[in-house]
Amino acid sequence: MHLLIINGPNLNLLGQRETQIYGNLSFEDYLAELREKFDHQIDYQQSNVEGEIINFLQESKHDGILINAGGYTHTSVAIRDCIAAIQIPVIEIHISQPQAREAFRHESLIAGVCQGSISGFGLKSYELGIRSFG
Amino acid sequence: MHLLIINGPNLNLLGQRETQIYGNLSFEDYLAELREKFDHQIDYQQSNVEGEIINFLQESKHDGILINAGGYTHTSVAIRDCIAAIQIPVIEIHISQPQAREAFRHESLIAGVCQGSISGFGLKSYELGIRSFG
Amino acid sequence: MHLLIINGPNLNLLGQRETQIYGNLSFEDYLAELREKFDHQIDYQQSNVEGEIINFLQESKHDGILINAGGYTHTSVAIRDCIAAIQIPVIEIHISQPQAREAFRHESLIAGVCQGSISGFGLKSYELGIRSFG
Amino acid sequence: MHLLIINGPNLNLLGQRETQIYGNLSFEDYLAELREKFDHQIDYQQSNVEGEIINFLQESKHDGILINAGGYTHTSVAIRDCIAAIQIPVIEIHISQPQAREAFRHESLIAGVCQGSISGFGLKSYELGIRSFG
Amino acid sequence: MHLLIINGPNLNLLGQRETQIYGNLSFEDYLAELREKFDHQIDYQQSNVEGEIINFLQESKHDGILINAGGYTHTSVAIRDCIAAIQIPVIEIHISQPQAREAFRHESLIAGVCQGSISGFGLKSYELGIRSFG
Amino acid sequence: MHLLIINGPNLNLLGQRETQIYGNLSFEDYLAELREKFDHQIDYQQSNVEGEIINFLQESKHDGILINAGGYTHTSVAIRDCIAAIQIPVIEIHISQPQAREAFRHESLIAGVCQGSISGFGLKSYELGIRSFG
Amino acid sequence: MHLLIINGPNLNLLGQRETQIYGNLSFEDYLAELREKFDHQIDYQQSNVEGEIINFLQESKHDGILINAGGYTHTSVAIRDCIAAIQIPVIEIHISQPQAREAFRHESLIAGVCQGSISGFGLKSYELGIRSFG
Amino acid sequence: MHLLIINGPNLNLLGQRETQIYGNLSFEDYLAELREKFDHQIDYQQSNVEGEIINFLQESKHDGILINAGGYTHTSVAIRDCIAAIQIPVIEIHISQPQAREAFRHESLIAGVCQGSISGFGLKSYELGIRSFG
Amino acid sequence: MHLLIINGPNLNLLGQRETQIYGNLSFEDYLAELREKFDHQIDYQQSNVEGEIINFLQESKHDGILINAGGYTHTSVAIRDCIAAIQIPVIEIHISQPQAREAFRHESLIAGVCQGSISGFGLKSYELGIRSFG
Amino acid sequence: MHLLIINGPNLNLLGQRETQIYGNLSFEDYLAELREKFDHQIDYQQSNVEGEIINFLQESKHDGILINAGGYTHTSVAIRDCIAAIQIPVIEIHISQPQAREAFRHESLIAGVCQGSISGFGLKSYELGIRSFG
Amino acid sequence: MHLLIINGPNLNLLGQRETQIYGNLSFEDYLAELREKFDHQIDYQQSNVEGEIINFLQESKHDGILINAGGYTHTSVAIRDCIAAIQIPVIEIHISQPQAREAFRHESLIAGVCQGSISGFGLKSYELGIRSFG
Amino acid sequence: MHLLIINGPNLNLLGQRETQIYGNLSFEDYLAELREKFDHQIDYQQSNVEGEIINFLQESKHDGILINAGGYTHTSVAIRDCIAAIQIPVIEIHISQPQAREAFRHESLIAGVCQGSISGFGLKSYELGIRSFG
Repeated sequence: MHLLIINGPNLNLLGQRETQIYGNLSFEDYLAELREKFDHQIDYQQSNVEGEIINFLQESKHDGILINAGGYTHTSVAIRDCIAAIQIPVIEIHISQPQAREAFRHESLIAGVCQGSISGFGLKSYELGIRSFG
Repeated sequence: MHLLIINGPNLNLLGQRETQIYGNLSFEDYLAELREKFDHQIDYQQSNVEGEIINFLQESKHDGILINAGGYTHTSVAIRDCIAAIQIPVIEIHISQPQAREAFRHESLIAGVCQGSISGFGLKSYELGIRSFG
Repeated sequence: MHLLIINGPNLNLLGQRETQIYGNLSFEDYLAELREKFDHQIDYQQSNVEGEIINFLQESKHDGILINAGGYTHTSVAIRDCIAAIQIPVIEIHISQPQAREAFRHESLIAGVCQGSISGFGLKSYELGIRSFG
Repeated sequence: MHLLIINGPNLNLLGQRETQIYGNLSFEDYLAELREKFDHQIDYQQSNVEGEIINFLQESKHDGILINAGGYTHTSVAIRDCIAAIQIPVIEIHISQPQAREAFRHESLIAGVCQGSISGFGLKSYELGIRSFG
Repeated sequence: MHLLIINGPNLNLLGQRETQIYGNLSFEDYLAELREKFDHQIDYQQSNVEGEIINFLQESKHDGILINAGGYTHTSVAIRDCIAAIQIPVIEIHISQPQAREAFRHESLIAGVCQGSISGFGLKSYELGIRSFG
Repeated sequence: MHLLIINGPNLNLLGQRETQIYGNLSFEDYLAELREKFDHQIDYQQSNVEGEIINFLQESKHDGILINAGGYTHTSVAIRDCIAAIQIPVIEIHISQPQAREAFRHESLIAGVCQGSISGFGLKSYELGIRSFG
Repeated sequence: MHLLIINGPNLNLLGQRETQIYGNLSFEDYLAELREKFDHQIDYQQSNVEGEIINFLQESKHDGILINAGGYTHTSVAIRDCIAAIQIPVIEIHISQPQAREAFRHESLIAGVCQGSISGFGLKSYELGIRSFG
Repeated sequence: MHLLIINGPNLNLLGQRETQIYGNLSFEDYLAELREKFDHQIDYQQSNVEGEIINFLQESKHDGILINAGGYTHTSVAIRDCIAAIQIPVIEIHISQPQAREAFRHESLIAGVCQGSISGFGLKSYELGIRSFG
Repeated sequence: MHLLIINGPNLNLLGQRETQIYGNLSFEDYLAELREKFDHQIDYQQSNVEGEIINFLQESKHDGILINAGGYTHTSVAIRDCIAAIQIPVIEIHISQPQAREAFRHESLIAGVCQGSISGFGLKSYELGIRSFG
Repeated sequence: MHLLIINGPNLNLLGQRETQIYGNLSFEDYLAELREKFDHQIDYQQSNVEGEIINFLQESKHDGILINAGGYTHTSVAIRDCIAAIQIPVIEIHISQPQAREAFRHESLIAGVCQGSISGFGLKSYELGIRSFG
Repeated sequence: MHLLIINGPNLNLLGQRETQIYGNLSFEDYLAELREKFDHQIDYQQSNVEGEIINFLQESKHDGILINAGGYTHTSVAIRDCIAAIQIPVIEIHISQPQAREAFRHESLIAGVCQGSISGFGLKSYELGIRSFG
Repeated sequence: MHLLIINGPNLNLLGQRETQIYGNLSFEDYLAELREKFDHQIDYQQSNVEGEIINFLQESKHDGILINAGGYTHTSVAIRDCIAAIQIPVIEIHISQPQAREAFRHESLIAGVCQGSISGFGLKSYELGIRSFG
């Protein structure tokens, strides 16, 4: 399969900041591990810009997408609309448990249009998301 | 008159996705029809990026603007502030009826600073918006 | 085409009160202009009574209806139910922009069952509504 | 017993519109059936006007009233006040289940002052309401 | 002065129903007392129909109006709009204290456009309202 | 027909407590009366345990069910899900009028998935519910 | 009669500040006018301190009290409790129309325990309040 | 590893009801497949009773628990408290996407105390949950 | 006196879990201390099942009841109804201060029908509850 | 021990007003009884002024404080902040059950920073509060 | 310039309590430092009483005022009204960041009528406030 | 020190639009004044794009940052997350007083993670922000 991982705002800081929480593994390093573990071809895009995340989604020709929309999860009707419009199955990923945090993180605007959601397993959430494809 | 149409996120997918709802006419094709129908000079900009839509609004020297802000309609204080700051009359356009959809689409943050709003007429909403200029 | 314009409460005061805002054209005068401008046969009904507006809607055999429900826009489940029940396409019209006014005017109970909505263009909102029919 | 059935807005459309949902029996036809089935004298009033429904309630000298207030169920403090003021027992009737529909139909302003409520049984809700009188 | 008293829904029941609360004086009897007490010419209108109350307000050529809108106080944007549109000073009258009753009576939609409000003094609220005119 | 009545929490106290409100007839006595009045076979289950009520619903092979879920009416998503899952028509019954009581009783979580609802007629609500089956 | 007027916070500024709105009559001057106009003995207390207003209410042996609680109207459960506890009839007075101002002024915590409320008549609200006593 | 799967209300109906949505595989059959696929020892408990689910959680001596609390997900503070009290890692599982359904399913009371959440993958959600343990 | 203590969900874990907060005294040990300290006969029931707690309340013939409903405090209309129905005085007990915890613990559904409430004193809350009986 | 009882607004009326509810014992008389019953030295302060209650709290050098903040319980962030700032354990006392009264009494702003809360036992709530200190 | 600093409830505890957060500098000591640093004449008032803070504001003849209203920031309509009524520019000061604390501290009732607001800089917030005057 | 000023959407219009409110000084001109007034090295970035503001924050190696996030202040969880993630102290700046404007501007999503906030002083808010660094 040909898969795409899209990371949203601030996820490029993984491994550099708040390492006591998230560890000192960068997402690129983790991605290398993922690619070894799976036969799938796994592409990767990251952006802090809401509209670029929409661009990634629109331009994708993959068999499946994993999206960690970061802070946009709770505020972006535009990303929701995009996921609803494209035909590729999209999986929502979170490293932490949003429902264990502030009230404004308890509702996900995109969950309702994603095929499935996985949260709280640290970086392993991505691996589980990939496994959901087969 | 010199008019500008600004389309927000996902409106570049018109004619490609969800064609059973929106038809298989791309916005560019529809734009060609509009330009034939009117004597006005009609410019066109589309972006999935909230801030670029603000850029389009700020840079405009047109006599009037039609904006379909898509999902940003319900979440963007920044676009609202921009429309309030510029002196050009801005018309809010929607292809569908947002109030017939999910509750989070019932309030438009930008309607209150637009000169007028037109929604629900399919692509014809744009034509009506142009006619509002005279 | 055979069209019907229905005006709700207080719209009979147009041209007499608050003329600095709405001008000193009565709706009847404006209607005469509309009838000259279009080939359509345009009937007109006005009432301050919610239930009579429902009567007008139920009795209509027109090809299309334009309704400016005034204050009932925000409070009338009964008018909403009527528009949903009849088969004639109904267009929602407002002279001003309700979303630029008090919070209790931000939600329209009838928009969700109207084919389209036009607001904020002054009396010209009616003309645009008629043009929406072709 | 001498009973009164009051039907509110749009219920005069029964049998004419949305017949796939409500069947093609008019309320008058159904009333004839009811009158055959029961020894009670059953009067009938219908109006689309909120205030006329109040008039019917005030003028009633019946032993009991069945009211289907339609859309006014959810918005009319005035009908509620009237039911509370008269001494005749009033039964609230609905053909469909309001709580299975939009959120603005989940609260009945009149239920709290009615002796009982019956909803969801189609036209049979009226028959059950009559049986509640003994 | 030439004054108008407008009573809304169910106020025609005064003196007939719930006499333990409101006494057995009909409003007409009370009106006769008022007319004796004051030199003003005092007209009187009552209706259970929201739109007729709007008609009374629109047709008035009085120097001042006292309105007890009953249950419409809390639900009628249309009456509010009418009071705001006419130039005659309007005083809001209530026999009881709405804020001592159910929560849905705590907000008055019309108070904000009335010149003053008087509530809780029984029928004497009308007398005080008349005195407010001088 | 073969019918099942399910009573929820505290309804086993009928006839023993608050007899000034509910009378001193136990539900078992009332059930005997019901069985005499109808040709239907009427089974009866009562439990104070939410999950046992779900068990009763799941195990039922009846032609119809009457459920008075008591306090669980307003809090049980689980009972709602069960009613939605089984194919037997379920009627919601209440002895009193929940909408005349505290605000937390105004919304029924189960009404939306029941075929009909009957409330406020005292024990007679059950009889009316049975009659709804024909 | 022996009456007490209690003015709450900032009402000591009358006649000194915002004179374009409230005129340049101090409350003391107005009080002198009131005393001339009525045979009643009228005492007067003002304080900016919530608890002192409670003291005034508790210590009062008057036949009636007029209270303009100013900003405490909307926030003081303690003043509400005091009015409910004493047996003297208390009238709520406001110079302006609170419901025409910010949303946090739309609910009066004390109205529900006052015998009556008068607002919006400028200083004349006090005169009307006195007249309510006979 | 020694794992426990706890299924809440109505999940015992899998394979029998709504098979067009959930397929005709019973959970027991699916469990057999799971046990073949993994080396883990997988115990299974199901109950429609909230308190029994708490009992299962309290009595567990497993290395990890997967819980699909069904309708209790959105209403049970008691299950939340139990998960917070025990030291075993608990994973929240849902077959469907709760955020794509009614508003009362958008908040999970237990997610905030679970180590991770997986939803929307059909029965495969359980398999992914097991894989999260290693 | 003959008293009953009812403990709700998860309170059987006292002394085993979260001992750094609650100490390592089990409730049974604490109960032994209580029985020594008082002449009252003190019975004890614990259940994790909401409906069993209702059973305990219904079957009680004690002179007074102390109930710590745990998580059901905030969600159980059914327990509230039961306490309101029985004639025995019931005291609400909490070990911690619910209002110092999450927002969903700030409202107690049962406090309004309990004779008194005691919270925050650790296990000593039970002792104070017993002393409230004299 | 050296204890302080602080009573807030209107509690100085105990024994004088609403004696049918609260009895005709003044708090001073009750205090005398308390002082006889306990070896503790019990000081007493009462004020209707929110800020003086803060003064009492700040100036206290006692081993424990019992506070019945009356109406300020539900509105005073300032008293809350003071209790949080001082190191003396503070117990919240109420004579009645606030949660059995109006909705605006259901939330206590101070409970979250008090060591414990006791309500509903009449004057005995104070005695129980003193016993909480040992 | 002649400036006034007004400190509200509990700010007199600075330097005595919670010194690990606020340091052990009393406000008087800090004030001495401020007076050395600036040529302005700086007066100082502190009170725990809401109404006295209003008195300070009303009596001020200064060129500018800095107010830290403490807990009254979020609850005092009366202080808001006073700031709006006087003509002296008022600056809102907070030592901590209220929006980083409990939800009831997120809205400031006085910010909307203050010329500016400064929060979060510890005692330095006052110095910045003084510098805002020139 | 090395400082960074980040301006969000529409702040590039300063000096060109709404000059009657904001003056005709562009931010660049004001920046020149600031640089003269302080010894600090002051860098400047402006963008209308939410994600670019996040980029500026992430790439910064400054000793302190001043951010005026404009309309994103009230909608951007993503900017909040970024400020929380980086270790540089960030000061929130506003030219006007957001709490004096529409309700949707009363809550700042970023204030809770900023070291301090300064608003309402016009362009001088930036100068005060710089002074906060020493």
